[in-house]
Amino acid sequence: MRVLVLHPGAMGASIGAAVSSAGHEVIGVASGRSRATIDRAREAQITLVETLEEVIGRVDVVLSICPPEAALDVAREVRQSGYDGIYVDGNAVAPETATAIGELFDNNFVDGGIVGPPAWRAGATRFYLSGAMAKDVVELFEDSLVTARAISGGAGAASAVKMCYAAYTKGSSALVLAIRALAEDNGVTETLLAEWDISQKGMRDSSERSALGTSPKAWRFAGEMREIAATFNAAGLPNGFHLAAAEIYERMAHFKNDDPARLDQVIEALLPKR
Amino acid sequence: MRVLVLHPGAMGASIGAAVSSAGHEVIGVASGRSRATIDRAREAQITLVETLEEVIGRVDVVLSICPPEAALDVAREVRQSGYDGIYVDGNAVAPETATAIGELFDNNFVDGGIVGPPAWRAGATRFYLSGAMAKDVVELFEDSLVTARAISGGAGAASAVKMCYAAYTKGSSALVLAIRALAEDNGVTETLLAEWDISQKGMRDSSERSALGTSPKAWRFAGEMREIAATFNAAGLPNGFHLAAAEIYERMAHFKNDDPARLDQVIEALLPKR
Repeated sequence: MRVLVLHPGAMGASIGAAVSSAGHEVIGVASGRSRATIDRAREAQITLVETLEEVIGRVDVVLSICPPEAALDVAREVRQSGYDGIYVDGNAVAPETATAIGELFDNNFVDGGIVGPPAWRAGATRFYLSGAMAKDVVELFEDSLVTARAISGGAGAASAVKMCYAAYTKGSSALVLAIRALAEDNGVTETLLAEWDISQKGMRDSSERSALGTSPKAWRFAGEMREIAATFNAAGLPNGFHLAAAEIYERMAHFKNDDPARLDQVIEALLPKR
Repeated sequence: MRVLVLHPGAMGASIGAAVSSAGHEVIGVASGRSRATIDRAREAQITLVETLEEVIGRVDVVLSICPPEAALDVAREVRQSGYDGIYVDGNAVAPETATAIGELFDNNFVDGGIVGPPAWRAGATRFYLSGAMAKDVVELFEDSLVTARAISGGAGAASAVKMCYAAYTKGSSALVLAIRALAEDNGVTETLLAEWDISQKGMRDSSERSALGTSPKAWRFAGEMREIAATFNAAGLPNGFHLAAAEIYERMAHFKNDDPARLDQVIEALLPKR
């Protein structure tokens, strides 16, 4: 199979490498991409072409792995090229967004949701897939480092899994960072940490790890938090947890591509200047 | 010392019992209280009088332990009685609320924050106290089941500890319950749980425990969540996490005084009727 990956960041490059390792040809588009994206694609054995137009007529599957706020635009661009093969949206978007993308591709649409880190080791990364052609996409990952799973529920189901999963992992990380900032602002950090050490063991460490782990990636979490908020809203559940999480990650956006930030640096970023 | 406790619920009765066990006389007011409160007070060796007026002239310490939304009213009622002894607000209120209460009692005000379950076993419950007279209040709990700790920072500090602590415990419980409802609404519960069993071990159990643990108490958590939201707001941090948590607990309020509800009952309460 010939698979086009749009547009490989850290996750997309590893997904492309997995498809490539399973014996398929993996292609990326260079035009409009950053130096980092292009270098990453090359390292992942992704063949680069200059434009979408020159390749779209000869691919069997398009795999969209991009920031959630770009997912609909990427899908529209592919649709407008006249493409009529399998289209997989692997992005962290609300089921409603996935459904809207799906309408562009009818039965050729496969909804995807990726859980775990970029797939550079076996068993760490699951790719949930739903929709009529989900099983065909699962086959692309045979014997690769990505565990691909077809689930029932049609377009939206795989995205819902991703939304629910990240709602806790990224939502609770934002919460704990906000709490550390709140304690600092109130001058009670030492007392809170001493209490956590008694009755919430691990919170001190996990709050420090949250700072290190999220700071370089926070810039792209805000859009995902808004997709999660929309998912809660569509279910008639309160969306405030993740609108607040989006705001926390927005305040951390300037750590992009830096070394992981320490908790004290994150707290300084979160609290308004006085 | 003679200590008046206003108005002992499950936590207040155990705090009163601790003061009583330390050799002090502990008094409660019966008028306007429920049968359950009166029975609980008697079991906790709290002497009941009919009205505040008949006792307020001869007590050394007033200890307010009540739902957060009643804290300011209780304080005003005591102030209007002409009381000029030590006043301890032990409630789950924002530092700003504590400070407003403190202004009624000047240097006789002690801010308090209770962490842990009702104090029926040693080492489980900490009572943080701040303000000029905090050390005098710590002495009331000598050798009792309550670990009382004076902390620096004046009025508001002890409340801030409580707000930060409950922001995580009760905030993350509300989040995980909301996520279970979201997964159910989207028909992806089984997939989410299977993923949690791989990569977020313990989440399946902790979501079920959250339902059992919070459902009978949820009715009084909403006010506390709003105090926490106000605390975030005062620090210039997003308050949406806890406004959402307040809404989750409000939808669970009808489980008050029932047996702990199962997760499926909580999910039904959280999702709007379709």
